[in-house]
Amino acid sequence: MFKITAKDRYARCGQLDLAHGMVETPVFMPVGTQGTVKAISVDTLKKIGFNIILGNTYHLYLRPGTEILYKFGGLNNFMKWDRPILTDSGGFQIMSLSKLMKIEEGGVRFQSHIDGKEFYLSPDISMKVQDSIGSDIHMVLDQCIEFDKGMSNIREAMNLSLKWAEMSKKCFVKKKGRMLFGIVQGGTDQHLREQSAIKTIDIGFDGYAIGGLAVGEGHELMLKTLDFTIPNLPDERPRYLMGVGTPEDLVESVKRGVDMFDCVMPTRAGRHGLAYTKFGTINLRNAKFSDDMMPVDEESDCPIASVYSRSYLHHLIKSKEILAAMLISEINLHYYNSLMIDLRFAIRENRLDLKIQEIKKNWRSVDVL
Amino acid sequence: MFKITAKDRYARCGQLDLAHGMVETPVFMPVGTQGTVKAISVDTLKKIGFNIILGNTYHLYLRPGTEILYKFGGLNNFMKWDRPILTDSGGFQIMSLSKLMKIEEGGVRFQSHIDGKEFYLSPDISMKVQDSIGSDIHMVLDQCIEFDKGMSNIREAMNLSLKWAEMSKKCFVKKKGRMLFGIVQGGTDQHLREQSAIKTIDIGFDGYAIGGLAVGEGHELMLKTLDFTIPNLPDERPRYLMGVGTPEDLVESVKRGVDMFDCVMPTRAGRHGLAYTKFGTINLRNAKFSDDMMPVDEESDCPIASVYSRSYLHHLIKSKEILAAMLISEINLHYYNSLMIDLRFAIRENRLDLKIQEIKKNWRSVDVL
Repeated sequence: MFKITAKDRYARCGQLDLAHGMVETPVFMPVGTQGTVKAISVDTLKKIGFNIILGNTYHLYLRPGTEILYKFGGLNNFMKWDRPILTDSGGFQIMSLSKLMKIEEGGVRFQSHIDGKEFYLSPDISMKVQDSIGSDIHMVLDQCIEFDKGMSNIREAMNLSLKWAEMSKKCFVKKKGRMLFGIVQGGTDQHLREQSAIKTIDIGFDGYAIGGLAVGEGHELMLKTLDFTIPNLPDERPRYLMGVGTPEDLVESVKRGVDMFDCVMPTRAGRHGLAYTKFGTINLRNAKFSDDMMPVDEESDCPIASVYSRSYLHHLIKSKEILAAMLISEINLHYYNSLMIDLRFAIRENRLDLKIQEIKKNWRSVDVL
Repeated sequence: MFKITAKDRYARCGQLDLAHGMVETPVFMPVGTQGTVKAISVDTLKKIGFNIILGNTYHLYLRPGTEILYKFGGLNNFMKWDRPILTDSGGFQIMSLSKLMKIEEGGVRFQSHIDGKEFYLSPDISMKVQDSIGSDIHMVLDQCIEFDKGMSNIREAMNLSLKWAEMSKKCFVKKKGRMLFGIVQGGTDQHLREQSAIKTIDIGFDGYAIGGLAVGEGHELMLKTLDFTIPNLPDERPRYLMGVGTPEDLVESVKRGVDMFDCVMPTRAGRHGLAYTKFGTINLRNAKFSDDMMPVDEESDCPIASVYSRSYLHHLIKSKEILAAMLISEINLHYYNSLMIDLRFAIRENRLDLKIQEIKKNWRSVDVL
């Protein structure tokens, strides 16, 4: 179900064959937290060229809930997206959003961030919810903790996550074209990462995620962690760096052999007026763009970035118009997708390093920041 | 520039030839207050089939302002909409939004609702702002007052509006394909409406609007007012009922000979979860739709109404997702446009009364409210 089609040093191009279609890697997956990528229609996602999105198990478990998802035969039919979906396990949002009540060996008790109602998530419930979502790639339930919680807590969370990974695998509802990924934890500690990788691979999964990064440790430490984590992962399985990241994070991680990414950045930034372009980020909220007739990026093949002026987008942001979020999110997702297309192309042509140099030079070429 | 192409009793089909293209009447114009129809892209407007939208002079005067609009060569280029635009004069929003400071014979002093900054609007400034917007149809500046302010106030406002209408005509920047409309005032009083109509026609305009309705007087009184106002308007000029209305208002007004409408209803309702359909309105916020797998209207040729389930739209509303506003606004605008297409078709076939009966029967046919 995963085939490597090209290699350039540590970087690789691959194909994921999934129940809802084929996905080329390296790939960026837009985040569709509550059954929609925020301010973006599925038509726009397809027009940009995305073949896979992420859904959040935590949110969909709370609302609309498994009953409605089963009734619709899954999230694809519910939201009218007919391409692959990856779901996280819910673990991360329990830590970051809900009022955590109690972590037990069997699972987690927590209060919904919506109405305070009590819920329980365990490996088998997470697998059941992901089955009701009908996603192409399921993630094992893991315990996420903040990066600065100290070694013994990180080790403890890692060990519990390994237990949950085993339980998740047992409860995983197998289907043709459906994959289950394990998650390697261990913070930024080389020894813990190695241990976690070895034990996770021992359990055996269709792909391996690197969890517990992009939680405040910074770009350099993240890359260092990738450097000693990735060599422990099997070559022939897809590698997914969860919740990452900036364009620079993506470029450097692809170079190190990561195949899959997801991040709220392009859409969240879009809602706040920050545009990602080949020149770097442009804060369209800035007053200096109020009468700037230039398109966001006139050479872009994004029909928004090359057509709408910075002045107009600035006006929409200042006027608090929904269209600002719609257009700038589209610009950003288009940029993220183009970046991955460029990287795939460069890997196939064995000139990834040169391409990355060129991309980084462009980020610094124009003073529009 | 206005040609009547078909008649059915008082109702008519016509063509408006404007600088940015041809518009078939009767027509509904979506409201693009601040340089965008809320939560709707221009691509979606075109896909639905709209050929004209409304822009608000008051809002665009305050932001982005005439300087930027002139720099862009008008609102069309600023917002990338290449079809006709009608602009109101700003009078209505000064009454409803701003802190009104002083009405003088020459104009109105007011404070911006955005930042309290002092502005002045007069017939010549309104004409200048509308010229900077570059709209195809300009409206004369009028004094709008609430409907329950009493006869003498209504008469006073009407007389000031007539003075301003003359001044507006003098300051109107003529261009090929650009029209200036007068506005008939006079509340719901037959005598005042007749007087206002006669004097407005005396000044002479390319089209005539009926102002001061849909301000709380109710459906029946509005229709009664149309009944005694429209016979005073010249047959050969377009008639525009400002700020109206519900589908029922539209149907009844077309029947009485109105050619043009604008209203925030379809987009405002869309942002609040209310869908307009051939069955009537559906409040998708209602809990009973939470697991309703039916599309909003499976027979509709609107690709949103016929595809997305009530359950999914309900979920998006409850989850406060921007996509809810995007999709339901599109459903509503599509319905409004379809309704006008149906009415035009029926007028051409001389069976408007039957069509209206059929439409009204449908509104009551299904219990989805």
